[in-house]
Amino acid sequence: MQLYNYFRSSASYRVRIALALKGLDYDYIPVHLVKREHLDDGYTAVSTSRLVPTLQDGDALVSQSLAIIEYLEETHPKPPLLPADALGRARVRAIAQDIACEIHPLNNLRVLRYLTHDLKLSEDDKNRWYRHWVETGLEAVERQLAAQPARFCHGDAPTLADLTLVPQIFNAQRFHCRTEHVPQVMRVFEACMQLDAFRQTQPSACPDAG
Amino acid sequence: MQLYNYFRSSASYRVRIALALKGLDYDYIPVHLVKREHLDDGYTAVSTSRLVPTLQDGDALVSQSLAIIEYLEETHPKPPLLPADALGRARVRAIAQDIACEIHPLNNLRVLRYLTHDLKLSEDDKNRWYRHWVETGLEAVERQLAAQPARFCHGDAPTLADLTLVPQIFNAQRFHCRTEHVPQVMRVFEACMQLDAFRQTQPSACPDAG
Repeated sequence: MQLYNYFRSSASYRVRIALALKGLDYDYIPVHLVKREHLDDGYTAVSTSRLVPTLQDGDALVSQSLAIIEYLEETHPKPPLLPADALGRARVRAIAQDIACEIHPLNNLRVLRYLTHDLKLSEDDKNRWYRHWVETGLEAVERQLAAQPARFCHGDAPTLADLTLVPQIFNAQRFHCRTEHVPQVMRVFEACMQLDAFRQTQPSACPDAG
Repeated sequence: MQLYNYFRSSASYRVRIALALKGLDYDYIPVHLVKREHLDDGYTAVSTSRLVPTLQDGDALVSQSLAIIEYLEETHPKPPLLPADALGRARVRAIAQDIACEIHPLNNLRVLRYLTHDLKLSEDDKNRWYRHWVETGLEAVERQLAAQPARFCHGDAPTLADLTLVPQIFNAQRFHCRTEHVPQVMRVFEACMQLDAFRQTQPSACPDAG
């Protein structure tokens, strides 16, 4: 398998953790977002949506990080990244989507670029925007975790929810967002960071980190 | 089952279509977003993330539209809303996420409110923002559909991808976005709107439509 990705992309980091937890080997193919390599014609042939990550598995190309992780879960079920019961799976997917649909899309590079290039917002306004969505978004995750506290987001093993949460916390810290108001979130983050699969795939450990 | 939802919420509409396709009865419980009823304490007890839709199934509460639809798929598999093969499922989920993670989050009510209330953007700038993300986002969906054309987004029966696409087109039309650059998208939209499950659950047909 090949993973087209970028060290700092949190969607890419989600998939790197999944591959590591499942013990799957892959070629790391960097796509430099700041140099806009994702807009090159060559990469459009790989990713019609021009986003990272893309997983190549034989001839098959799979896009969108959560879809990639579900694909890996179906094709390499061990260890599971979703609980065994439908309600547990729904809760895990909902926590993942509380991050992947409510926080992350507002703060990715093309959106920040639109704020400053097209809307001519100041750096201060841009940073306030970033922190607003992270800090309020994490409150929703905090309430989810507090309702059913466990070692990880759901139960005593990492799931899709943890794979989505940890990269978001890396982004939060990089942009100096408040996190002291979300103690359950940070407790789970620390528990995840004890594990090699989360630590060895973090942005600073990637081959393209610069 | 009870569905807490709002007629104009496109995430709610996705779930209404799923319930209709699967022939499941439910109580329609309106939560008026513009009156900010989703922020009431009573609703926070139902939805920790204070978003619609929420599905109540017995004592269980499920949030996030895509997680709800996967839950319905697992608990009421017929008719299927995901293909039988892992790669097909990945493609359908990726198309759904191209909309649910890349287009819709940028244009929901709380984001538009932040643009005008907090950032003091003009109505014109807000509308330009809205149309930008819809029009460029639909281009990515168009490329996905053009790569593997079929009656619906994937194959000859509606899937999770169509359930996500159709409500987005309703939003696009309401905000006068261009759609003539995405002919495959609009062809699939028209095919879906031939079906009762899509037509009878559309915003204007809802009990709280006003």
